[in-house]
Amino acid sequence: MNQTLETLLQHRSIRSFTDTVLTEEQINIIVEAAQMASTSSYMQAYSIIGVTDLEKKKELADITGQSYVKDNGHLFIFCADLYRHQILASDLQKQDMIQNIENTEHFLVSSIDASLAAQNGAIAAESMGLGMCYIGSIRNNIERVDQLLQLPEHVIPLFGMVVGYPNKQTEQKPRLPKQAVYHVNSYNKEQSGDLRSFDHTIQDYYKSRKQNARLDSWTDQMIRRFSHPMRMDVSDFVQSKGFNKR
Amino acid sequence: MNQTLETLLQHRSIRSFTDTVLTEEQINIIVEAAQMASTSSYMQAYSIIGVTDLEKKKELADITGQSYVKDNGHLFIFCADLYRHQILASDLQKQDMIQNIENTEHFLVSSIDASLAAQNGAIAAESMGLGMCYIGSIRNNIERVDQLLQLPEHVIPLFGMVVGYPNKQTEQKPRLPKQAVYHVNSYNKEQSGDLRSFDHTIQDYYKSRKQNARLDSWTDQMIRRFSHPMRMDVSDFVQSKGFNKR
Repeated sequence: MNQTLETLLQHRSIRSFTDTVLTEEQINIIVEAAQMASTSSYMQAYSIIGVTDLEKKKELADITGQSYVKDNGHLFIFCADLYRHQILASDLQKQDMIQNIENTEHFLVSSIDASLAAQNGAIAAESMGLGMCYIGSIRNNIERVDQLLQLPEHVIPLFGMVVGYPNKQTEQKPRLPKQAVYHVNSYNKEQSGDLRSFDHTIQDYYKSRKQNARLDSWTDQMIRRFSHPMRMDVSDFVQSKGFNKR
Repeated sequence: MNQTLETLLQHRSIRSFTDTVLTEEQINIIVEAAQMASTSSYMQAYSIIGVTDLEKKKELADITGQSYVKDNGHLFIFCADLYRHQILASDLQKQDMIQNIENTEHFLVSSIDASLAAQNGAIAAESMGLGMCYIGSIRNNIERVDQLLQLPEHVIPLFGMVVGYPNKQTEQKPRLPKQAVYHVNSYNKEQSGDLRSFDHTIQDYYKSRKQNARLDSWTDQMIRRFSHPMRMDVSDFVQSKGFNKR
């Protein structure tokens, strides 16, 4: 097994960091790796905001409810970005280009571009011995995050990524059985056996892990997650910024 | 520089493959690496369809207009997948859970989950000496791809990934200047100088590259891309499958 596969297969999210900040060189490598990810039709429809301002980090930690959003080696916010494309359209006064930029197809393109870039950055960080964790909970108050980072129209924050030197190692979390996730030629709807066996796996994992042991299953977690309306404002927000309009 | 960074920074899309098919072991490693990517709140809201059926590959090559969608080492289709979560809701007869599953927030979550997984798969493939290319053009006829793969409600195809042994090496495509993509603490809207200098870079690249040399710039490409309405049916399609409803 090569070193890269080892890095990929050893992944675990890190949520506690020493207070060593990343060097400029480390940040540059992470950004450069992110930029080298594939991009849909060369659009490069994303931007990354590095947040170093302590007041902003504090407020982001409040929004997300996660202290490590403030206390880490570096905080990146990944954004879907069609601003550069919109400038071209505005300069040419082409209204039909704007309509195209604002459709669901390009909401998808920009979200996918940002995610591919982010994952390259994550792998780059982990290959250098750093730990990382994505922060989807910036969408707890996506409008406020948007204001904090002064994002123009056609740019929206999608998720954060904290990076730093791990303060403690964590255990690796099991994944769904391969056959529930990987299908051949057509989708296999018969997954209930796999989900039951996964629930047993994950119950054992939660019961036996060294930190934060608890009684829980994947099914119970998902039911809790979806039982209350969550981030219902994301839809109106993204449309107000010129994404996902139809 | 470690081996993983070298892999990340050496990326170029490969669009021509020898006729050697991937081994089961290679496919398993790619899927396993994909599964180890981070996933939002442990949702694992994606599925991967491996396509080996030649008739299906032919039709997908027609839809995408790319012959290498048929001729490659292996073809993966990455899907946003909330089907497993919807089963839980249906079993519990919880209508409010369905509404939550179908909102824009979880359209984003599942698209991001699928993309993070895909990029891990891409890096795993490249680390083993394979080449790859994403195929966004399956969305040229997303409804037909959905039928071909027999995807149930709450599963949609997002993009393909072809993997195989490169038939010829390609040159690496330049990226936007770092300062256009990476911002510190707030978004920098002053990018027109960067875009102009990038246009010069990319004009030189297209003029001098060994295969398919042409006169073109990034700006011109983007204007062409956005000048005609594109995949305007994606919006209705994803809603018809139970995604992005509000």
